[in-house]
Amino acid sequence: MNRKICVVVTVRASYSRIKTLLLAIKTHPNLTLQLVVTGSILLEKYGCLLNQIKQDGFDNIIKVSNLLENENATAAAKTTGLGIIELASIFENIQPDIVVTIADRYETISAAVAASFMNIPLAHVQGGEVTGNIDEKVRHAVSKLADYHFVATDTARQRLIRMGELPDHVWHTGCPSIDLAFQIKNNRPMQFDYENCQSVLGKPGKTGRYLVVMHHPVTTENNAIRHQTDTLLQVIDALRLPTFWFTPNPDYGSSGVSERIKAFKMTNKNLMIYFLRNLNPELFLKLVKGCACLIGNSSTGIREGSFLGTPVVNIGNRQRGRERAANVLDVVHEPEAIMNAIQKQLDYGPYSGVCLYGTGNAGNKIADILANVELSIDKQITY
Amino acid sequence: MNRKICVVVTVRASYSRIKTLLLAIKTHPNLTLQLVVTGSILLEKYGCLLNQIKQDGFDNIIKVSNLLENENATAAAKTTGLGIIELASIFENIQPDIVVTIADRYETISAAVAASFMNIPLAHVQGGEVTGNIDEKVRHAVSKLADYHFVATDTARQRLIRMGELPDHVWHTGCPSIDLAFQIKNNRPMQFDYENCQSVLGKPGKTGRYLVVMHHPVTTENNAIRHQTDTLLQVIDALRLPTFWFTPNPDYGSSGVSERIKAFKMTNKNLMIYFLRNLNPELFLKLVKGCACLIGNSSTGIREGSFLGTPVVNIGNRQRGRERAANVLDVVHEPEAIMNAIQKQLDYGPYSGVCLYGTGNAGNKIADILANVELSIDKQITY
Amino acid sequence: MNRKICVVVTVRASYSRIKTLLLAIKTHPNLTLQLVVTGSILLEKYGCLLNQIKQDGFDNIIKVSNLLENENATAAAKTTGLGIIELASIFENIQPDIVVTIADRYETISAAVAASFMNIPLAHVQGGEVTGNIDEKVRHAVSKLADYHFVATDTARQRLIRMGELPDHVWHTGCPSIDLAFQIKNNRPMQFDYENCQSVLGKPGKTGRYLVVMHHPVTTENNAIRHQTDTLLQVIDALRLPTFWFTPNPDYGSSGVSERIKAFKMTNKNLMIYFLRNLNPELFLKLVKGCACLIGNSSTGIREGSFLGTPVVNIGNRQRGRERAANVLDVVHEPEAIMNAIQKQLDYGPYSGVCLYGTGNAGNKIADILANVELSIDKQITY
Amino acid sequence: MNRKICVVVTVRASYSRIKTLLLAIKTHPNLTLQLVVTGSILLEKYGCLLNQIKQDGFDNIIKVSNLLENENATAAAKTTGLGIIELASIFENIQPDIVVTIADRYETISAAVAASFMNIPLAHVQGGEVTGNIDEKVRHAVSKLADYHFVATDTARQRLIRMGELPDHVWHTGCPSIDLAFQIKNNRPMQFDYENCQSVLGKPGKTGRYLVVMHHPVTTENNAIRHQTDTLLQVIDALRLPTFWFTPNPDYGSSGVSERIKAFKMTNKNLMIYFLRNLNPELFLKLVKGCACLIGNSSTGIREGSFLGTPVVNIGNRQRGRERAANVLDVVHEPEAIMNAIQKQLDYGPYSGVCLYGTGNAGNKIADILANVELSIDKQITY
Repeated sequence: MNRKICVVVTVRASYSRIKTLLLAIKTHPNLTLQLVVTGSILLEKYGCLLNQIKQDGFDNIIKVSNLLENENATAAAKTTGLGIIELASIFENIQPDIVVTIADRYETISAAVAASFMNIPLAHVQGGEVTGNIDEKVRHAVSKLADYHFVATDTARQRLIRMGELPDHVWHTGCPSIDLAFQIKNNRPMQFDYENCQSVLGKPGKTGRYLVVMHHPVTTENNAIRHQTDTLLQVIDALRLPTFWFTPNPDYGSSGVSERIKAFKMTNKNLMIYFLRNLNPELFLKLVKGCACLIGNSSTGIREGSFLGTPVVNIGNRQRGRERAANVLDVVHEPEAIMNAIQKQLDYGPYSGVCLYGTGNAGNKIADILANVELSIDKQITY
Repeated sequence: MNRKICVVVTVRASYSRIKTLLLAIKTHPNLTLQLVVTGSILLEKYGCLLNQIKQDGFDNIIKVSNLLENENATAAAKTTGLGIIELASIFENIQPDIVVTIADRYETISAAVAASFMNIPLAHVQGGEVTGNIDEKVRHAVSKLADYHFVATDTARQRLIRMGELPDHVWHTGCPSIDLAFQIKNNRPMQFDYENCQSVLGKPGKTGRYLVVMHHPVTTENNAIRHQTDTLLQVIDALRLPTFWFTPNPDYGSSGVSERIKAFKMTNKNLMIYFLRNLNPELFLKLVKGCACLIGNSSTGIREGSFLGTPVVNIGNRQRGRERAANVLDVVHEPEAIMNAIQKQLDYGPYSGVCLYGTGNAGNKIADILANVELSIDKQITY
Repeated sequence: MNRKICVVVTVRASYSRIKTLLLAIKTHPNLTLQLVVTGSILLEKYGCLLNQIKQDGFDNIIKVSNLLENENATAAAKTTGLGIIELASIFENIQPDIVVTIADRYETISAAVAASFMNIPLAHVQGGEVTGNIDEKVRHAVSKLADYHFVATDTARQRLIRMGELPDHVWHTGCPSIDLAFQIKNNRPMQFDYENCQSVLGKPGKTGRYLVVMHHPVTTENNAIRHQTDTLLQVIDALRLPTFWFTPNPDYGSSGVSERIKAFKMTNKNLMIYFLRNLNPELFLKLVKGCACLIGNSSTGIREGSFLGTPVVNIGNRQRGRERAANVLDVVHEPEAIMNAIQKQLDYGPYSGVCLYGTGNAGNKIADILANVELSIDKQITY
Repeated sequence: MNRKICVVVTVRASYSRIKTLLLAIKTHPNLTLQLVVTGSILLEKYGCLLNQIKQDGFDNIIKVSNLLENENATAAAKTTGLGIIELASIFENIQPDIVVTIADRYETISAAVAASFMNIPLAHVQGGEVTGNIDEKVRHAVSKLADYHFVATDTARQRLIRMGELPDHVWHTGCPSIDLAFQIKNNRPMQFDYENCQSVLGKPGKTGRYLVVMHHPVTTENNAIRHQTDTLLQVIDALRLPTFWFTPNPDYGSSGVSERIKAFKMTNKNLMIYFLRNLNPELFLKLVKGCACLIGNSSTGIREGSFLGTPVVNIGNRQRGRERAANVLDVVHEPEAIMNAIQKQLDYGPYSGVCLYGTGNAGNKIADILANVELSIDKQITY
């Protein structure tokens, strides 16, 4: 018996974090992968991830263009609503046995709502974690709609059980994002090939220390993001180190980030900061692994960074409450605090990696469970 | 300072249960009511509740036609998606300070998603309860999106706190549905005026015992509903008692109910069963209060019925887990079991009412809290 | 070289009228059929045409549930909008070379708008005709979006050319609906097998004269439809002839029709009127061919009726301006006028059929043109 | 009797061209303006026109965020569909007596479809003209949905009548865009105040010759736009004249334009080209009036330019077929052709303005007709 597993992938980060699961489903003898991509993945301005996904060997990809121009908060709501409508049509036509949704973005809840109302068993990856931002609400709401949970940490599993989820349906598999990190950490030279990366990136450079910046708007603090971006640009500029700065996901506030970056580029000729939209997942992880410090408020530093031992300066509330290893220094969004923390991390150097978010075979574990778990949509809180 | 409170009302039951809150907001010196009605309320085939709402004195009602033809599961998902899109536009234009959403239908989650993504504080009424059906998933997901919770029972409050909601933001106000029941129970003669009801209903009749049936499809058991409806029709038909049978809300499966009722009417001339779409809330509660037995799987028997002391036969899994008083007999969906339970209830007669779901002033309590609570959208699970 | 031809089919009538084209595309060596069905075809309450389409041998059918509850005018607009959104996604995924849209319903313009904006060549069948109702506006608007026109009559062709369409892109192929009528008229006994039809319809009966009624709401005259339906029911009831009455398409006003039919059935026990939702196209045409008179405002009487020689009483403005043969008597919507016209037609008996709307091979002609026409989306009015 | 006139405004150009009509409706004793703004008007990246509209004294503006990220052709279709859905809701709530839609963009047809299906009389401004691009199809389709036509030229009126529109419902009022041009031409000094414009634009400069560029992607030729933009940038760069270059509307292809402009700015330090998103309508027209040559494929050069006598170089097919005065030189999209034509225009200098598109009081004329025309939705082609 062959099960059709529909995975809905929405942004750069989701793809990186689910890629090993996609491969595990694709190659599993009892599973058929139905890959749906939505949102920014389809757009060049966010790096045209679709082409990378095709190059990774996935085909028959179903596309859903649902992203509204995202300057205002209305757009996130409408993109979600549009996503539900479109995914409902797709589910009606491809009839998946299980739908898999990832993490805590608005597209995540689109897939969750559509599958739930259509009586399709729903699996959620990366539930049970804690953060700030709208992500916190969305993540737990999706958990409450989901029938199966594949979590990254034991704490996450305990949290979901405490929230009333059935213990038998919460599997501590680790996060598939660590699978890729594992391959990079063990199978390839530890010395990050900066020259080669540079040639890939189309810029001259030389081996040496470099920074990575990933800073997203906190949608619940929208007014602050322009000022925060200016501050961070000044701090990074002052450090005079080669820096790879990833522009943010399409969220309420991200156009503010783009605008401030554009303004900065107009008036500052710091040729050491390279602004990037996207990298393929493996190259991205190598970049993270090799960097002297990762700065911003992305979960990458906390999640993959814990495994890779990357020094991280985590700014503000966006990751508030997420489990973290010793590699993370938390700071408020003030220039001195950020600068001091980066200096500390530069002085400290690489950390020992720990297996907080997984041990490297989550994709296969999840695929096996999806192939064997009893199909069920009848769920009730345990208390 | 005047706060704009936007309440989104979607079906017959939601309006009955929120009417006293709507009045309390409307008359509150520091609150302005923004009333949005969606879904079946706008349609004649579901009883055209809109006219009743206008007759109750509400005006400037904003209408959202979003209900897809609801034969299949896809329709519920798409109606939800469409609801989000449309409510987002409305919220953008009317700029509410707080959005209030009720219970656990698909329209409930539309309002919740739209408000959450738009950074508008969200209040949820009737959270923390337990049932079967898709409602169970939706209710808890909405709680996870909501910033303020107004719950009917202390158990519900404890459950939400256990789910990780901030205790300070979970108020045990009782359910506004009991407010109306309270008015009927105390301010009006206990003898239900059946003759008068009949004249209102446009049918001949005489004072005496009668039944009320409210049986909804369980969307997660869709295949069963036609057979269940046939069974229930046969049982009720055999009892030869005057019966008020309410046709169900627009849900996946409700067209199956309508079809079986139509088939029954074609071949059976039981003139003692009156099929109704709707009644105004007060008349409806009088009908429930006076009936010899309420049969089906509606929450009305368990919720308002507990206060009114109505004998109830609750069938199947839809209300599984919901707190109930002594007035409820639970049975599986088999004709003998249903018949026996109805006979028991007819023999027993009225129960003493209990204040399980409220004491009669929830609307005012909630309005006062909405007027004074600190506005906040920054929320995090407590563990 | 193989061209992908996407045909969007939406209601009972559209399928009947396009079926031979679908078969011609399916069997054409250089064409691949991409069949999309939307709207009422997917719903049981409109006769579940989808199953018939499958039985006719079509597979890989793409489904689009987009029909809103259609009591009010808003629903038609929203159904159109939703159709555009969903068809855009489908076109993006299946990449048709040409999209074919039929006649003049709201779903027709959904396909036309989606294809036009997506730079996909658009073919329109049944353009250039004239009627009343919103259909009149929609039909000509679709013609203005379409790149290729396949028309039923030479008058229609001349009208499109006069409207500024490129003569080389307007083909007078005849209407595919006549193809089916042709098969029935010539390849089968002229004596309509009423007994057999009855057994198919599950009702007792005997060979003899019978009527067919097809009366749709005129959406631009919505207030009138309930009264019109009552009038027509009284006239038909008084005639005491076996009658097949087809309930209308999902349009603004059709719920009013259903309501009046239901009320009629409650109070009148005229067992000679059989209300039908649907029939397969061939059986339907036999029924039309054999009837003593077809009454209402459907284009069937005028179009297929002209070929089959069916006596028709056409009521009101809906078909105002459409070319017609001698078989049609036009009357205003008044009981005496309708009754007198029916009596005249019953006295006259069958007419000689004429080839006004086609000669029976439109499907093949259109398929051949679709296979060979130069693909083009660059169009300009000719004056 | 007071009529509610709902005008749907969508982009920079539409607002400029309808502003005098908006004012005329607003101040008309028998009309109430219901102003709905959608699409790019709400977005900062397109110049945040909403603030300007407010500054012009319009209030109670209803906002509809419906613009999808517009890199691909799917987005235009979906934006149209979403627009229909949202406008249907708005029309249902504000109940306009007449809806006014402008020109030929996708938002234009959204308003037209929603109003038509909802039986609201529809007025169309700028119908009957001829161009290339998808605009050509959309414009004529909207005319076929519209009940009243307010056209700019007598040729446009004759064309609509030839297309079968009722002559009594086609008014040659002139284009409201000329009203603003008229005010600028006659009431203010002919000498364009370049210094002052510069200070408004926040850039240093001095009085002298300057160019204006307005070049939009042709959505039906999408692949060409990047190359075309590069070519045009090189030509303009070589001229070494101060240039105001307006970035395009949100259309399929406009992100390609943005990308090429960004690339140009990275590598070329031509500080004489100022890229603009937007200007208020009056300042914009002064800029056009004063420029030595307007280059591109916008209708502004042909329409307002004819009245203002602006020398124009019109490139490619987008304006193919539109009526034009002597001020326009048409060229293919090749660098030498463009350069030669600009040189010719620079040598020639300003043209005498002509009243091809209006005489300056279209807004008032249209408002008066809207106040007095018989309300009607029943329309039929005249032949």
